Amino acid sequence: MVVRVAVAGASGYAGGEVLRLLLSHPEVEIGALTGNSNAGQLLGSLQPHLAPLAGRTLAATTPEVLAGHDVVFLALPHGQSAAVAAELGEDVLVIDMGADHRLKDSADWDAFYGAPHAGTWPYGLPELPGGRAALEGSKRIAVPGCFPTAVTLALFPAYAAQLAEPEAVIVAATGTSGAGKALKPHLLGSEVMGSVSPYGVGGGHRHTPEMVQNLSPIAGQKVSVSFTPTLVPMSRGILATCSAKALPGTTADAVRAAYEKAYADEPFVHLLPEGQWPATSSVHGSNAVRIQVAYDGSAQRIIAISAIDNLTKGTAGGAVQSMNIALGLPEELGLSTIGVAP
Amino acid sequence: MVVRVAVAGASGYAGGEVLRLLLSHPEVEIGALTGNSNAGQLLGSLQPHLAPLAGRTLAATTPEVLAGHDVVFLALPHGQSAAVAAELGEDVLVIDMGADHRLKDSADWDAFYGAPHAGTWPYGLPELPGGRAALEGSKRIAVPGCFPTAVTLALFPAYAAQLAEPEAVIVAATGTSGAGKALKPHLLGSEVMGSVSPYGVGGGHRHTPEMVQNLSPIAGQKVSVSFTPTLVPMSRGILATCSAKALPGTTADAVRAAYEKAYADEPFVHLLPEGQWPATSSVHGSNAVRIQVAYDGSAQRIIAISAIDNLTKGTAGGAVQSMNIALGLPEELGLSTIGVAP
Amino acid sequence: MVVRVAVAGASGYAGGEVLRLLLSHPEVEIGALTGNSNAGQLLGSLQPHLAPLAGRTLAATTPEVLAGHDVVFLALPHGQSAAVAAELGEDVLVIDMGADHRLKDSADWDAFYGAPHAGTWPYGLPELPGGRAALEGSKRIAVPGCFPTAVTLALFPAYAAQLAEPEAVIVAATGTSGAGKALKPHLLGSEVMGSVSPYGVGGGHRHTPEMVQNLSPIAGQKVSVSFTPTLVPMSRGILATCSAKALPGTTADAVRAAYEKAYADEPFVHLLPEGQWPATSSVHGSNAVRIQVAYDGSAQRIIAISAIDNLTKGTAGGAVQSMNIALGLPEELGLSTIGVAP
Amino acid sequence: MVVRVAVAGASGYAGGEVLRLLLSHPEVEIGALTGNSNAGQLLGSLQPHLAPLAGRTLAATTPEVLAGHDVVFLALPHGQSAAVAAELGEDVLVIDMGADHRLKDSADWDAFYGAPHAGTWPYGLPELPGGRAALEGSKRIAVPGCFPTAVTLALFPAYAAQLAEPEAVIVAATGTSGAGKALKPHLLGSEVMGSVSPYGVGGGHRHTPEMVQNLSPIAGQKVSVSFTPTLVPMSRGILATCSAKALPGTTADAVRAAYEKAYADEPFVHLLPEGQWPATSSVHGSNAVRIQVAYDGSAQRIIAISAIDNLTKGTAGGAVQSMNIALGLPEELGLSTIGVAP
Repeated sequence: MVVRVAVAGASGYAGGEVLRLLLSHPEVEIGALTGNSNAGQLLGSLQPHLAPLAGRTLAATTPEVLAGHDVVFLALPHGQSAAVAAELGEDVLVIDMGADHRLKDSADWDAFYGAPHAGTWPYGLPELPGGRAALEGSKRIAVPGCFPTAVTLALFPAYAAQLAEPEAVIVAATGTSGAGKALKPHLLGSEVMGSVSPYGVGGGHRHTPEMVQNLSPIAGQKVSVSFTPTLVPMSRGILATCSAKALPGTTADAVRAAYEKAYADEPFVHLLPEGQWPATSSVHGSNAVRIQVAYDGSAQRIIAISAIDNLTKGTAGGAVQSMNIALGLPEELGLSTIGVAP
Repeated sequence: MVVRVAVAGASGYAGGEVLRLLLSHPEVEIGALTGNSNAGQLLGSLQPHLAPLAGRTLAATTPEVLAGHDVVFLALPHGQSAAVAAELGEDVLVIDMGADHRLKDSADWDAFYGAPHAGTWPYGLPELPGGRAALEGSKRIAVPGCFPTAVTLALFPAYAAQLAEPEAVIVAATGTSGAGKALKPHLLGSEVMGSVSPYGVGGGHRHTPEMVQNLSPIAGQKVSVSFTPTLVPMSRGILATCSAKALPGTTADAVRAAYEKAYADEPFVHLLPEGQWPATSSVHGSNAVRIQVAYDGSAQRIIAISAIDNLTKGTAGGAVQSMNIALGLPEELGLSTIGVAP
Repeated sequence: MVVRVAVAGASGYAGGEVLRLLLSHPEVEIGALTGNSNAGQLLGSLQPHLAPLAGRTLAATTPEVLAGHDVVFLALPHGQSAAVAAELGEDVLVIDMGADHRLKDSADWDAFYGAPHAGTWPYGLPELPGGRAALEGSKRIAVPGCFPTAVTLALFPAYAAQLAEPEAVIVAATGTSGAGKALKPHLLGSEVMGSVSPYGVGGGHRHTPEMVQNLSPIAGQKVSVSFTPTLVPMSRGILATCSAKALPGTTADAVRAAYEKAYADEPFVHLLPEGQWPATSSVHGSNAVRIQVAYDGSAQRIIAISAIDNLTKGTAGGAVQSMNIALGLPEELGLSTIGVAP
Repeated sequence: MVVRVAVAGASGYAGGEVLRLLLSHPEVEIGALTGNSNAGQLLGSLQPHLAPLAGRTLAATTPEVLAGHDVVFLALPHGQSAAVAAELGEDVLVIDMGADHRLKDSADWDAFYGAPHAGTWPYGLPELPGGRAALEGSKRIAVPGCFPTAVTLALFPAYAAQLAEPEAVIVAATGTSGAGKALKPHLLGSEVMGSVSPYGVGGGHRHTPEMVQNLSPIAGQKVSVSFTPTLVPMSRGILATCSAKALPGTTADAVRAAYEKAYADEPFVHLLPEGQWPATSSVHGSNAVRIQVAYDGSAQRIIAISAIDNLTKGTAGGAVQSMNIALGLPEELGLSTIGVAP
């Protein structure tokens, strides 16, 4: 089987990461690569780490250029995916790495993004209950946000096992690539090195409603989410520290058992041995999720911490994993659980 | 007035930082400098940034060497301060930058440190209600831990104004100097650069009971603290993200007013203009505390975030500030609110 | 004496650093602060580390705003200083932290900058032979480039003592603040963290002719300079590794003696004890220059390495030092040789 | 073909990196893993990024444990390889990633290492003239040092084409993993972040004679090397800035042609398009070498700069590449030219 793939938005970080992974995917042939302001430039000058594609020239993002592929990855700014997808045939697998097709509730979309809502596509988080079934054979996939990936996987076993109150408190550290290549002063190296800073505090981050959307059905009730992201001095990686008050009668053993059950057969999610906590370096460049959980008897809270690479499992790796499922390929093809460390 | 000062433990990060500050203090004369394994070495090879002291040789930490000073700073490993302090006269101001004399409850000490409890000294956090009065004229001062400094100042106004439930959830990022110069594999540059990792999760960090001790009397009831520290790739700085569920009827205006009232006249604590959040780089090398607070109406939580330099306000700067108060000097002498950025 | 100072270009890194230093200068009163695109904004949002100036608003850079000060610091993009300076009285001390007035040879200026040459002002490197005399009482000062400061101080003693061939090879590492706050993709944190890269290779960097201009008169002949700057993952600091072939008969003792003689009485330049090499962290935020030199008998080369903070001694600290000399103030006023480390 | 491989020294950075690569090698089965002080521990706690091997326990490094493998990689401290290799059969391919078998001149070994010289093995740098032939079928391979790999590949085309004087000047920046996991104060994260520092200056670095050994035969005369390594704040990567005075009559075109000829058919060495300079991030985790060269007409020097990952092409990747050649496997098996960036 040869899957012919195009990437729209190949000059950004998400586009570059999906190409990095696809170059190692045994069933994929890389077709058209497009950009907007960068159209006409060599990929070698924009993504110098992708040596085998250095001689490729970016095309403009047009229906003609994207036609004739089996799969099209969209790595476009929020609000631009729907128009491009509309021009692609229904037999093409379109995988949106942007936010446009994640949220089910148009009111959430309006409140947090403000553009017309593009509709909802099958959600690319296979590890959720029913997650794989929703993706098999699908021709449209919405890739989850990086923070919702880390947070949902850290918390859902506690809610699935009915161990936690429906009020989650999350503080997540992210590397700067999560903000993309946008030229903003606070993303300059001089600003981020040697500094940690929060943003989107107090319920303002766009990923918050996506977390609520993921966790609430599992909990069987509306879960409120207090989410604070912080920018830390590294290029890649998310460490999500998540907690919720334990329901009365919860024990450390019950917590452990819930997580062991949830992840016993997951190829990419690793519950660490008791006492070992995840570091983001251990998943650098990999599609793995490392999770540890503890029960703090004094504060009566369940603390679950997950580490992912925001560009891999948090974006492009999750996208390739979902592609594999949608196409009926082995789920792990082209993906690794081995981090590049130190 | 000339204050003659000795520093025991001058080769470590806390000792080096107190010397950095004292070198700019107009009333201080730096006397004996001691070390243990480093005794006999030149300070210029151990602390090359302290140029004016490069030719000084470290002495052994003995009563004879420390005698004859007005002030002695102890920057020693936990458990070693009491024995040294016992040999110093009652007329000498002894300032312990270690943990030995912070906790009031011996059971807490036993549970988290395990050595015999050395007793409790006046607590060097002047910004607490009654904080300055406890220090004026005192001859013994226990410098707060770096995390308790950041967390207590972020949260106490909410508890003082009776706005929050007594269950605080805190996730704090710290630079690596907080762990000292100890030679441990996880503190190697190769390990910490490009990585974020948690430690002491689930109630295990030694600073947790100190936070409970500080906040509970202000709240008028026992405050439980869920505290998760994370190690981030920078040398200095703490960003403490603290939250608690708001009591019914709380408004954003009430929250803002509580913090404005608490910090209206504090020289080192700056409540930022609404909408601006603190970055640790802005307090690098300074004794300032930058705080912002928000009310998340959706999650019904108060979120307060503070940024400090763990070595300055979090350790040595707080120590010098307390020394000034104890000696009747102007509180800001030798201390700055200006960060070294970018 | 109260010196009233204005800073044009207060929102950039050079402008921010000169303000950081002036805030601690006992004879200075900070007057007008100007910006261009940032005019009208609060300094607290642009330079949050300068707490005491947080409430100041940036004015536009006009002659009216800058009038009425004793000293005006220009922290403007290359090519803009001459026009602003022309509007300021001849009795005002104007200190240009840009490149406009450094080069004596208009052909060099044309080749490397391309705008009309603004003329040459007294050169603000007091440590050069005759350097202080050129600044005393001067009303116009050109602050040296950051690399030329580090390189000239590392190499001139070898040339002054006639020990080295007139072909210098220099590779310098710089922190990203040397590139300013310009929004360029290669300066994003995601790009610079975890990466080292060269630029301006092969004679193309604008600081090259300035090094030639400094060293040649001391050597008594034209010194050729091969200069390669590299960008490293830190915000501040320059480490300049400089070497030249030793003339026949050179000995390690002669090399050491030349440097000891050159820097015996310099307040800011520290020749380290033999065997100790400088690290940029030791001068972080300070005006100190740390230098070490060695003679490699096998390659017959003299290797001199200097560490400076590019924003302090390399820009704003050197500017304040020169201001002090020009005004007849003690040279060290408002400046420190103590680094903020670790 | 299934190649059964053992790794002695699996807990260090070189050992971890060779395992990372071997896990993706289609013809390799990973056998015994050994350590010294870490024997008995789980690899999952020592190398948490190597998820598929997390459950493996380190054995002691004994002949019995290492017996029965086709290939044994030695990632041991200098001076320990010879004794271990002596116990392995002559039919086993032994690949020494330490320094013991690199130098041909015992006097060099004595001067720089001081232990008895273990003898010389075929040198694992296939890109050198005759390099592959020396490795085919070999049962003993000495992996080059990381700096000699970067420097030799940057400079040898200039010497092969007789364009440069035999006096090379090299300044190289390295990430901290090059120093290994040794617990030394200057390798602590607090010390290396935000700082650049030189070491082994003036001819003292152990890799210097290896560079001389590589370049001299190609130049047809003894090449002197002035080598200054610097430690920069990143975990991985080497940027080697190399230069030599051009012989009279040298032109930029001739320089370019020499490098194009040398690397036209090399799978891992990429001469970049003119004007593009290499960044270490572009080779992060990859076996690629990125090189650019320029002729500085003003200083009459050839400047060649190479970027490698010190752990991959500089150590473990070079080792696997040589293993492939020795075993008659395709040279690129298990190796990638794609970096993990940003």
